Amino acid sequence: MPSKLIAALGLACLSWPIALTAETGYDAWLRYAPLEGAALAQARQSIPAVVALLDDSPVGHSAQAEIVRGIRGMLGRTMRAEGSLPTENAIVVGTLEEIRRAAPGWRLEIPVGAASLPANSYRLRTVTANGRVYTVVAAPDARGLLYGSFALLRKIALGQALAGVDESQSPYASIRWVNQWDNLDGSIERGYGGRSIFWEGGKAREDLTRVADYGRLLASLGIDGCSINNVNANPKVLSPDFLPQIARIAEALRPWGVRVVLAVDFGSPKSIGGLDTFDPLEERVAAWWKSAADAIYSAIPDLGGFVLKADSEGRVGPSTYGRTHADAANVVARALAPHGGLLLYRGFVYDHHMDWRNLKNDRARAAYDNFHDLDGKFDDNVVIQIKNGPIDFQVREPASPLFGALEKTNQAIELQVTQEYMGQAHHLVFLPAMWKETLDFDMHAGNSTSPTPVKALVAGRVFHRTVGGFVGVVNAGLDENWMGNHMSQANLYGFGRLAWDPDLSAARIADEWTRLTFGSDPTVDKTIDQMQLTSWRTYENYTGPLGLQTLTDITGNHYGVNVEASERNGWGQWHRADDKGVGMDRTAATGTGYIGQYRPAVARVFESMAACPDDLLLFLHHVPYTHVLHDGKTVIQYIYDSHYEGAEAVEGYVRAWQRLKPLVDERRYREVLDQLEYQAGQAEVWRDAVTNWFARASGIADAKGRVGHYAGRFEAERLALERYAVRDVTLAEDASGGQAVACAAATCTATLRYQGPSGWYTLRVEYFDQNDGVSHYRLWVGKQLIDEWAADRKLPTRRLDSTSSTRRQISGVALRPGDEIRVEGVPGGAEQAALDYIEIVPER
Amino acid sequence: MPSKLIAALGLACLSWPIALTAETGYDAWLRYAPLEGAALAQARQSIPAVVALLDDSPVGHSAQAEIVRGIRGMLGRTMRAEGSLPTENAIVVGTLEEIRRAAPGWRLEIPVGAASLPANSYRLRTVTANGRVYTVVAAPDARGLLYGSFALLRKIALGQALAGVDESQSPYASIRWVNQWDNLDGSIERGYGGRSIFWEGGKAREDLTRVADYGRLLASLGIDGCSINNVNANPKVLSPDFLPQIARIAEALRPWGVRVVLAVDFGSPKSIGGLDTFDPLEERVAAWWKSAADAIYSAIPDLGGFVLKADSEGRVGPSTYGRTHADAANVVARALAPHGGLLLYRGFVYDHHMDWRNLKNDRARAAYDNFHDLDGKFDDNVVIQIKNGPIDFQVREPASPLFGALEKTNQAIELQVTQEYMGQAHHLVFLPAMWKETLDFDMHAGNSTSPTPVKALVAGRVFHRTVGGFVGVVNAGLDENWMGNHMSQANLYGFGRLAWDPDLSAARIADEWTRLTFGSDPTVDKTIDQMQLTSWRTYENYTGPLGLQTLTDITGNHYGVNVEASERNGWGQWHRADDKGVGMDRTAATGTGYIGQYRPAVARVFESMAACPDDLLLFLHHVPYTHVLHDGKTVIQYIYDSHYEGAEAVEGYVRAWQRLKPLVDERRYREVLDQLEYQAGQAEVWRDAVTNWFARASGIADAKGRVGHYAGRFEAERLALERYAVRDVTLAEDASGGQAVACAAATCTATLRYQGPSGWYTLRVEYFDQNDGVSHYRLWVGKQLIDEWAADRKLPTRRLDSTSSTRRQISGVALRPGDEIRVEGVPGGAEQAALDYIEIVPER
Repeated sequence: MPSKLIAALGLACLSWPIALTAETGYDAWLRYAPLEGAALAQARQSIPAVVALLDDSPVGHSAQAEIVRGIRGMLGRTMRAEGSLPTENAIVVGTLEEIRRAAPGWRLEIPVGAASLPANSYRLRTVTANGRVYTVVAAPDARGLLYGSFALLRKIALGQALAGVDESQSPYASIRWVNQWDNLDGSIERGYGGRSIFWEGGKAREDLTRVADYGRLLASLGIDGCSINNVNANPKVLSPDFLPQIARIAEALRPWGVRVVLAVDFGSPKSIGGLDTFDPLEERVAAWWKSAADAIYSAIPDLGGFVLKADSEGRVGPSTYGRTHADAANVVARALAPHGGLLLYRGFVYDHHMDWRNLKNDRARAAYDNFHDLDGKFDDNVVIQIKNGPIDFQVREPASPLFGALEKTNQAIELQVTQEYMGQAHHLVFLPAMWKETLDFDMHAGNSTSPTPVKALVAGRVFHRTVGGFVGVVNAGLDENWMGNHMSQANLYGFGRLAWDPDLSAARIADEWTRLTFGSDPTVDKTIDQMQLTSWRTYENYTGPLGLQTLTDITGNHYGVNVEASERNGWGQWHRADDKGVGMDRTAATGTGYIGQYRPAVARVFESMAACPDDLLLFLHHVPYTHVLHDGKTVIQYIYDSHYEGAEAVEGYVRAWQRLKPLVDERRYREVLDQLEYQAGQAEVWRDAVTNWFARASGIADAKGRVGHYAGRFEAERLALERYAVRDVTLAEDASGGQAVACAAATCTATLRYQGPSGWYTLRVEYFDQNDGVSHYRLWVGKQLIDEWAADRKLPTRRLDSTSSTRRQISGVALRPGDEIRVEGVPGGAEQAALDYIEIVPER
Repeated sequence: MPSKLIAALGLACLSWPIALTAETGYDAWLRYAPLEGAALAQARQSIPAVVALLDDSPVGHSAQAEIVRGIRGMLGRTMRAEGSLPTENAIVVGTLEEIRRAAPGWRLEIPVGAASLPANSYRLRTVTANGRVYTVVAAPDARGLLYGSFALLRKIALGQALAGVDESQSPYASIRWVNQWDNLDGSIERGYGGRSIFWEGGKAREDLTRVADYGRLLASLGIDGCSINNVNANPKVLSPDFLPQIARIAEALRPWGVRVVLAVDFGSPKSIGGLDTFDPLEERVAAWWKSAADAIYSAIPDLGGFVLKADSEGRVGPSTYGRTHADAANVVARALAPHGGLLLYRGFVYDHHMDWRNLKNDRARAAYDNFHDLDGKFDDNVVIQIKNGPIDFQVREPASPLFGALEKTNQAIELQVTQEYMGQAHHLVFLPAMWKETLDFDMHAGNSTSPTPVKALVAGRVFHRTVGGFVGVVNAGLDENWMGNHMSQANLYGFGRLAWDPDLSAARIADEWTRLTFGSDPTVDKTIDQMQLTSWRTYENYTGPLGLQTLTDITGNHYGVNVEASERNGWGQWHRADDKGVGMDRTAATGTGYIGQYRPAVARVFESMAACPDDLLLFLHHVPYTHVLHDGKTVIQYIYDSHYEGAEAVEGYVRAWQRLKPLVDERRYREVLDQLEYQAGQAEVWRDAVTNWFARASGIADAKGRVGHYAGRFEAERLALERYAVRDVTLAEDASGGQAVACAAATCTATLRYQGPSGWYTLRVEYFDQNDGVSHYRLWVGKQLIDEWAADRKLPTRRLDSTSSTRRQISGVALRPGDEIRVEGVPGGAEQAALDYIEIVPER
C-alpha cells in the first residue's frame, strides 16, 4: 500500500531533496539542515544504515520515519527502515516490552522493569551485543519512542556525539497541551500568524496537511494535546453532525501522538441540547453531558478532554443558577471520566464591571477568591487552568497566588505563546525568559521547608496530585512560518521544552532553538541568543517597566500605547498613575489585600517596599514619582531612562542583525530585518508616548533633557502644507506634538526647507499605516525622487494612533542648506496618507 | 511631473531597498550589490554627493539615473541628481560641448576637440578645479555618456579605485546589435528563456517593462541596436497599421540608446504591398520599399534599419527573378539610405537539397560562393551579416572564408548567443571562449603583412569600411533570469563586451561577469571562472570533438544525440563517418575545394594534415579511425577518451558548485545545481551514445575497456517487469542496450534483486522525460520508499530518445544482498514512464 506507507514514512516532501528546500520558516526547528565538515564526518561514522522499529503503532512508525527523514536531511543518507532486530549495527526504536522479547539479553539498566519508566518517557542507550552496536531508543509507550527519536535527532543536529549515549528522560508533568483559540469560521482570536490551519467556513479545512505538520512540530517538543477551537467556544462543536469534522482533525494529529481537546460552552445543554436549562445540578443536564461525551468518544476514542471557560468575560457559567465552579466542572468531568478524559477548567474568572473608584477593589484577587475555597471540591479529572499571573499575560506580573492555594485540586499553568500583549508578532519578545521567572518562583507552599516553585506545584509534585502541568495558548496559523514572525517560533519551542523540562534554562532553550533554526555558525548563534534573551526586558523597558503592566490599549487592540486605557473603567487593570504618583497599592496593610493571598514568606517580601523587587514595585505599591528605587533612581527618571534604553536596544538589534547578512539565508534575513526595523520605529513611538504622558502627569522633567526635545525633528503640522490638513490624533500621545496632518484630497504635500549643514543624513518619516486602506508616499529632495513606499502593513487599527504610527527610514541622503524636502501623500481607501513628523539624523 | 521623473530616474524599484531584493537573476550583472568592508569604506571616501548632468537628452538622463541607482545599491547612498556644475565635489556626466560651455578651463586632454572622440565613445577623467574634485564622464554624444556611466559603475562594483581615473574608450566597430528571433505570436525561434518579451498574440505586449529593462542590459554593454522580430519574418511588420506596435517598443528602448531594427520579408511588396511582383529591379518594387521605409521612419525616426534573410531555408529571394543578392540588398538599402538606415543582409544562404552522394558537394562553400563575386556591388549602407563559421553555429568550425573575401563590401559577424546547438540553456557553455578563437583568427587578408584577424575585418578596419561590426542572436525571454539558465547570461555579457572591445580576453570577460553577477568572494570567482572557461571544451568533448560538428539531430531539435542525422540527406552537415573512417575531405587537392576559399597562408595550414589543428581535423579531412593525432592518440581512441573526459568534467562542475553552497544565495545555488546535475546525466547519455556508435561503426574497441561495459548498470529490459513492456527507442543509441521499457498501464514496476556487497550506494535511474506528459516515478528498496519524482522537465522531444533520456540520482542508499530495488512508474499524458536502466554506484 504505497500511499499509506508514504504517509507513515513522512516522505511527502521527497520530491525535493531536503537539503535544497528554500528556507521559509515552515520547517521551524525541524529543518534537518545538512551537516558539514567535521560534524558530517562524525555523524556518518556513528550513524548506522538501519533503523529498526520494534513496535507496530502508527506513532511508532512516525518515530522511525522521522529518523529516516532527519538522517536523510542531515547526512544525505536514507536509512533502511526495518521491522525486526538486524544482525548489523542499527538504531533500534522499540518499546521496552518488544525489546525484551527480541533481545532478552540486553541490559537497558532500568531499575525495576518497564513500570519504572513513566508514561511518555524514553531511554537512549548504546548496547553492544554479538559484536554489534545498537543505539537504542526505548520507551514504555509509542509516544516515548517518538519523543526519544526527536531527542536523538536533536542531538545529531546540535553536533553532539552519539557514541556511548546513556540518558533517560521523563516528562516533568502529565499535561503538556496547547490551546488554539481558532474560531470555526477560520479566524483566530489573538492569532497573529494568519488564519486557522484547522477551520474554514464552519468546517474542518479540506486540506489538513498543515494540521499534521503542526502535530509533528508539537510532538517534537513532547506536547501531546491540542485544543482546536476557541475557549470562547461555539456550542456547535458538540453537535452530533459536527463530529466528523473533529474526527478528521484528530486523524491528522494522531500519528504524532497529539490528542484533540475541545473547548466547550457551558450553556450547550440548553443552546444545542434541547433542554431548558444548563444547571449543573440537574440530572437531565448531567445526562446530556454524558451522552455528548459518549458520542464524541465513540468517534474519537483518544480525545484528551475538554477546556471550559465559564462565568468569564460574558461566557455563561454556574452563577446563572447560583452554583459553584466545582458544580460546573464536576458535571462535565463526570461525563468524561469513563473515557479517561480531563476537564481543564479555566481559572480566568473575574468581574469586569468593578468600581474603579473603590481603592480596595482588585481584579488581581479574582482567581484566588473564586477558587481557593473550592479546593478539594473538584473531581480527580478536573484541572484548574491558571494563567501565570493574576491579571492577563501582562509584560510583568507576579506568579498567581492561586498556585500556592490549591492543595487538593489539580492545576495547570496557562502560558501565552501567542504575543497578545507582547507585540503580536511585530515585536521580538522571547517569552521563555519571562516564564522561567514564574516557574522557578518559590511560592513557599506546603509544610516542608523545601522550595515549592510554581513548576512543581502545577505539576502536582508538591501536593502529590497525579495530574497537572502546562498549557500554552498558541495560535499557529496559515502564515508560511506559522507565527507571523520567524523569531516568535522560539516561544512555541520554549513552551514545549519547558513543559517537558521546566528546569531547562532560558539560555539553553534559546541556544538550542537558534542552532536548530539558523544553524551552527557561532556569530549567528551568539547574536540571536543575545537578542532573544534580552528581548523581554527590552520590550518591558519601552512598554511598562516597574510592574506598570503593559501600558497598551487594554480595551482595544492590546497593541499600541494607551497609558490611560486601564484607568477609570471596570476592567481592573489599573495602575492608578496621576499627578502625584503611580502604582496599585495591593498591600495587606493599606491596599487591596492582594498580597495577603500569598503564603507569609512571599507576602512579607511583597508587602515591604524595601524588600519588594523594583520590577514589581508599581504592581504592588503606590508610590510618589520621586520614590527612590534600589538602584538610586527616582521612579520617574527610571520610567524615562528605561524607555530610552528599550528603544536603543531595538536599534541595536537591527545593527546586530545586519551584521549577520552573509551568514543567514536571504529570505529569513530580509523578513527578520524588516520586522526589527519596524519594531525599532515602534519602540520610539512607545518611548515618546509614555515618557511624554508621565512628564505631563508628574510635572517632573527628564533629568537628561530628552523627553519633549527631539533634535532634528520637524512636526508635519509645522511644515508648508499643500492640501494636507492638521488633524488631532486619537490621544495626545499618539503623535509627536499631539497632532498629525492628513490628506482628504487626491494628493497632498508637506515641504520642509532644510537649513542645516551639508552632509549625509538619514531621514525618518513618521506616518500612519491604518488597516482600512493603502496610502502611497513619495519623498523628494528638490526635484529628485529619493524614496517611495506604500503604507501596507497589517496593523490592528483604523485610526490615527500609536498603533498605526510607523517609521520609514531613508538612509544615505545628501542634504545641502536650502534643500526642499517634500513628502507627497496619496490616500488609498479610508487611509489618508497621514504624517506625524520628519526627522533628520546625521550619519557618521 | 513625478511619474515621468520616476521613469527617467529609473526608480520604479525604489519600493524595496535594492540591497534586500532577492537574487533571482533578473538583474543579471547589474545587481549593484552592496559593497562591504574595505571596498565600501573606500567607495564612500571617493564617491561625492552630487552627480551633475550636463546634457538634456533622455539617454543622458538614463545615465545620470543609473549612477544614482548604482551608487544607491552599492553604497546605500542616494546621490543628488543636479543639472548644472555644482560648487562641490561631484561626478559630472556631460557632453564635450556642454562641458566646454560650463567649464571652459577644464583640460580633458582630448587631442583635437570633440571630433577626436568617435561616436559613442567616452572619457573618464578626474579634474581638479577651484579645490574641488570632479570625476568626469565626458562623451561626444548621449550614448557615450551612458556607456561611460556604466563603465564607471562597473569599476566601482569591481572594487577599482576611482581616484585619478584617466581612461578613454571607443567602440571597436559601429555595429553592435542583437537579433531577437521572436515571432509575433509570442513564441521564439531557438529561444530557451521563455516567451517573447516583445510580442504576444500578434501585438506588442501590454506591459513593456521588461523591454525597457532589456534595453538597460544591452546599453550596459554598449549595444545600440536590437532587431525585435524573427529573421524568418512575418511580412505584417511592414503593414501601416502595425507601425504603432513597433513604435511602442521603440519608445521603451529609446531611453537606453537602443534602436529598433526590423527583420523584413523580401516578398513583402507582393504579399502585403498589393503588387504582383517583388522583383528588385522593378521600379514599382523600389517605390514600394521606399514608401514603406518612409512610413516607418516617420513613426520611428531612429530606426536602425532592416535585417533581411533571402533565398535561404525556404525564404523567398532574388533568385525568383534571377536577380543577385546585390540587386535584392540594394533595392531595400536605397529605401533606407535617406533615413540613415542600414540593411543587414544575411550571408546564411545555402542549398539544402544537395546530393550527399557527390563527394565534391559542400555546404561550407555556400556563403563564399554566393557572395564573393558580388564584392563591390553592394551599396554603402548594406552590410553582409556572416555567421562565424561556414556551417551553422556548430561546436567547432573554422572562421568563415567569406570574412577574408569581401574587400569592398561591409560585413558583420553573426554570433549566436542563444545556445541552439550548444545545449539550449540546459548545458553550461561559455561561448566567448569560442568566439575569441574566431575573432582572433588571422585570415591573412589584405596586402600588408600585418595580421588581419576576423575582428578587424568585420569592423571594417582592414579595408577601411566605415560600417561593420557584430551581431548577436539573442533570445532573451520572459523567464525571470532572461536566458533560462543563470550561467547563460555570461554569453550575452560576453557578446556585448566583445562587440565593444574584441581584444578583451575570455578570462577577463568571465571574471568580470562572475564578480558582477555572483560577488567578489575569491572561491566563488575562481570556481565559476574555471567552469565557464573550460565549459566549451567540455561540451565539445562529449558532443563532437575533432571538428565533427555537433553530433546532434540536425533535422530535429538540435539538442539530443543523433550521430547519423547529418548523413544521407541534403542539408550538408555531413561528417561522412562510416566503417572505415570519418571526416569531410574539404581539401583543394582531393576534396570539395573548400579550403581553397581561404587565402593561401591559411589554406596551406588547413590543407596539410600535418599542419591542420586536431580540433578541426575531421571538419577538413577524411581519415581512417586509426589515424594518429598530434598527441599520439588514434582518432577513434580520442573520440572515446574525449567523451569520457567531457562527462567527467561535468561531474566535476557539480562537485565544485556544491562547495559554493555557503557562498552563493540560496535560489541561484539551487537552480544552477539543478542545471549542472541534469547536464552531468545528459553528458553521460551523449558519451554512451556517441562512443557506442563509433565502436560499432569502426569495429575498434575502446583501449580502456569502458565503451559497452558499464559496471553496476542494470538494463531495465532485463529486470523483473510487471506490466512494463520492452520497447525499441528511436535510434539504437538512444538507450543503453538499445532498448527501454514503457508503461501502457496505470502503473508498472521494474524490480531488481541486489546481490552485491553491503554498503552505501548512489542509485542512478535513467528514465525518459518527454514534453507530452508528466509521469511519476517511485523508487523502493524492499518495502521502503526511498525517492519519488516527476518527469516534468521541459525537453524538446515527444519520443523515447537521447533528448528525453534523463538521470535521477539518489545518493546515500544502504543496500544489502537480497534487497529488492523496485521502480514504480505512473504514466501521465502521452508519456509512458519509460525506463532505460538502473545503475548502482558505491559511495566512498
